[in-house]
Amino acid sequence: MPRTEATRLPELMSHNRADLDRLLASTVLGHVGFVDDDHPVVLPTAVVRWDDQLLIHGSTGSRWLRAIATGQPVSVSIAAIDGVLIARSAFESALLYRSAVLFGTFTPLTGTDKETALDILTDRIAPGRVAELRRPTARELAATLLLAMPIRQWSIRVLDDWPHDPADDVAGPAWAGQVRLGTPPLTVLDAPDLRPGIPTPPSATAIHGIR
Amino acid sequence: MPRTEATRLPELMSHNRADLDRLLASTVLGHVGFVDDDHPVVLPTAVVRWDDQLLIHGSTGSRWLRAIATGQPVSVSIAAIDGVLIARSAFESALLYRSAVLFGTFTPLTGTDKETALDILTDRIAPGRVAELRRPTARELAATLLLAMPIRQWSIRVLDDWPHDPADDVAGPAWAGQVRLGTPPLTVLDAPDLRPGIPTPPSATAIHGIR
Repeated sequence: MPRTEATRLPELMSHNRADLDRLLASTVLGHVGFVDDDHPVVLPTAVVRWDDQLLIHGSTGSRWLRAIATGQPVSVSIAAIDGVLIARSAFESALLYRSAVLFGTFTPLTGTDKETALDILTDRIAPGRVAELRRPTARELAATLLLAMPIRQWSIRVLDDWPHDPADDVAGPAWAGQVRLGTPPLTVLDAPDLRPGIPTPPSATAIHGIR
Repeated sequence: MPRTEATRLPELMSHNRADLDRLLASTVLGHVGFVDDDHPVVLPTAVVRWDDQLLIHGSTGSRWLRAIATGQPVSVSIAAIDGVLIARSAFESALLYRSAVLFGTFTPLTGTDKETALDILTDRIAPGRVAELRRPTARELAATLLLAMPIRQWSIRVLDDWPHDPADDVAGPAWAGQVRLGTPPLTVLDAPDLRPGIPTPPSATAIHGIR
């Protein structure tokens, strides 16, 4: 059976691309799984969408990124907890969540694609930051691995529901509802070595959806 | 080389148990990796600590949970993004994060251990909720898989730092600092079928550290 078909609660699963894009706009935290000597390894990393590709990046000194770059099969899991569905029993209670799982392989980007992808990564995390910064140097580009995976084999699950309690629980004394998480507030702190007279830039206060 | 030794930026990695416990108090979102027919699969699930064990649970109808329950090797990744380290170049910028990776195998809990573990899970997500609820029924317990993995082979990485920019970047026009994420606000919503006169319980407003 394909890994992107559901056996359990299939009504929660879809291939709705708008839902996937919305999830990738809510968080940049992805978890990449691969097989190392027959054993599973899962590591977290920033994931950012560039059209129909998923981008990850890191140092050329990273052993696992170099391994992934050879094109071995990976699974990427991205999830956001939106709150808690509180039913009248523990059994019917659940987290409100959105979660996507992608399968495929990563390929290194080079040349102008690599530079464009780095800009997209930077601006996704701090919107507008690229315009506030000098360009990357050749040395910096050479020290960075930028990998892309096509968004091709994937599925998403969304649980955003109200309790479904049996009638005798509804008639009982327990409360039921949702507790939803809002947007976390930002605190902006100047670096200790910041020169006087440099104000907080728009990119810093525009950060959102990174979890 | 053991999977819990660092090759890259080893100064960020530790086996500091207090850091791990703090991370597990910040989020209940874990990503479990396993090998399915030589391919890596990563799926998100709620993870909660019970002393020196990691608990996960779900329906007995869940194919992947049943597979995990047989004791095949797994990797569990847990991460929290605490903000953004904004340097004077994209290259020196980074996410502020805490991330733990655990390796091992899960074993099903039964009997009173299973019931205690379920209570710990419930109260971790909504503190005090167990005291507000009826007990689980035998049917509900039978429909639930509760798995535990010893916290034995693991490591944690914590990046909580200021920019380390070269002198010519510090002398330049770009701002640098940290943008830190605070605690998300909660919105509590009554279920549509809530009977009148049942107030929001303390457990709902006590929810925190679930991300």
